[in-house]
Amino acid sequence: MIHIVGHTAIDHICRVPVLPPKNGSTRITDRKIYFGGGAANIAAGIAVLGEPVTLHSAVGDDFRGGEYEQWMNRLGIAPRFFEVQGTHTPTAFMFTDDSGDQCTFFEWGASRIFCEAEAPKLPFVHMATADPAFNVRVAEKSEFASFDPGQDVFLYRKDQLEILLENIDILFANRHEVGVMCDRLGMKPEQIAETVPLAIFTAGKEGSTLYEEGTIHKIPAIPVTQADPTGAGDSYRAGFLSAYKRGYAPPECCKIGTVTASFVVEHKGCQTHLPTWEMMEERYLAHFGNFPEVPPSARRFA
Amino acid sequence: MIHIVGHTAIDHICRVPVLPPKNGSTRITDRKIYFGGGAANIAAGIAVLGEPVTLHSAVGDDFRGGEYEQWMNRLGIAPRFFEVQGTHTPTAFMFTDDSGDQCTFFEWGASRIFCEAEAPKLPFVHMATADPAFNVRVAEKSEFASFDPGQDVFLYRKDQLEILLENIDILFANRHEVGVMCDRLGMKPEQIAETVPLAIFTAGKEGSTLYEEGTIHKIPAIPVTQADPTGAGDSYRAGFLSAYKRGYAPPECCKIGTVTASFVVEHKGCQTHLPTWEMMEERYLAHFGNFPEVPPSARRFA
Repeated sequence: MIHIVGHTAIDHICRVPVLPPKNGSTRITDRKIYFGGGAANIAAGIAVLGEPVTLHSAVGDDFRGGEYEQWMNRLGIAPRFFEVQGTHTPTAFMFTDDSGDQCTFFEWGASRIFCEAEAPKLPFVHMATADPAFNVRVAEKSEFASFDPGQDVFLYRKDQLEILLENIDILFANRHEVGVMCDRLGMKPEQIAETVPLAIFTAGKEGSTLYEEGTIHKIPAIPVTQADPTGAGDSYRAGFLSAYKRGYAPPECCKIGTVTASFVVEHKGCQTHLPTWEMMEERYLAHFGNFPEVPPSARRFA
Repeated sequence: MIHIVGHTAIDHICRVPVLPPKNGSTRITDRKIYFGGGAANIAAGIAVLGEPVTLHSAVGDDFRGGEYEQWMNRLGIAPRFFEVQGTHTPTAFMFTDDSGDQCTFFEWGASRIFCEAEAPKLPFVHMATADPAFNVRVAEKSEFASFDPGQDVFLYRKDQLEILLENIDILFANRHEVGVMCDRLGMKPEQIAETVPLAIFTAGKEGSTLYEEGTIHKIPAIPVTQADPTGAGDSYRAGFLSAYKRGYAPPECCKIGTVTASFVVEHKGCQTHLPTWEMMEERYLAHFGNFPEVPPSARRFA
């Protein structure tokens, strides 16, 4: 069982002719609601790839019986939720106008519970973006921990990042997140990578880099027609963690993550175009050739 | 039966520390969802005052089984809804920051159906803010029609306002709306009032003015501790129309409207503090003295 800790969120993606001036108003010409939140995106990706997954998130009054819960149930995600009465499930409102300008409003909502919540003790956990103090407690208790700071990276203090790096086994970060971590820790990217057994730094269309005990592997991205880059990192992690659980070597896990992400960016939304293991395998073959076999006995954290 | 035509809307009232700059983001520290929409506010007010009421609105996929529908059912509002698949119920997002600056995003959503919808033929109808062309068709078909242009006043063309004024029996407008109508029609407020049997112009804390066939009545507002002026106009109309249906003379209807509105502004939200007829009567007595009796036989549009 892979455990994922972090946000479940609801994303309202809106079009407006023009962003409103201060004390002005504007018309929404289109509003689509997408299922999101870093942790939920990763859990959904793992579930569609066929691995058992438990999601540890905070949700509000609006979650029970709603479409998002029904969707998670259909995917078979095991819920381990803090249900916080009198709050909303974390919600983001993103407005984009005809000239491409944007503004975003994010409601932390139920996720405020993380700062005071007791951390679960877990055998194999990935901590996606959420409360820094909670993630520190999870990392300290877990047997095997993976971590990405995500868009909340700026919330982490130096000492919190240091404890996390000491306690985790895998670090994921994109260029922006690596940059913030370097600033906060006074370190170079390679130095950060050396503090953990496995570090994966992603760079969008330029692919990803795996740091594995002194060895550096470069994994190219797969060229696809990109509709929306949102969710690429989350699906990469879903692919990586599913493959890692099945016993694949880290460089193979990176390729499987890359292939998984290539599906997600082809469509709008983070959970709208997730591949099954078979879909992933087929594209892997077409792109990298020679899909590696791994015996069931290789599975980790049985 | 009083029929109300216009918007049912969902209002998200949000607090943020500071409005985001272009291409920036901000945190929502509080988000409350209120039931709104001009027509729905008036219908709710009438229902709580104890008069049978039918609401003609457009709603989206998100309405059925939701909290707003349950609330309307509890109030006993008879629904006559256009349910428009693939759309949202009209929704407003209002963001206010710590320095009092605001911005508003409004999604017309399901209400787009009004422009092409067939108008019902009704004995006693109030047209609240909605599509101008639809309101024109409703006014032309109705036996007795009341109208307020509301926040959509700027959508009305000169010829549409002229047809409406020709066909309606009661006109409600606040100062801003009167101003826009004067501009568009090239008329003075008194001239507009003379085109209809009854005109009621409201002016917030300065009370309201009734124009009744050449006679002008000034009705003072009731001094209360105001928490939120939103919904004052809608509840005024709910009180007026309920009283008018019961057979009260227009100046009494204005006083009953004034008392009804005085409850609504004491609390946040447009439907959160609606008075029953008894509550209204009690405050009327305390403020205006001598609550008038009207025999059941005086009821209009039996």
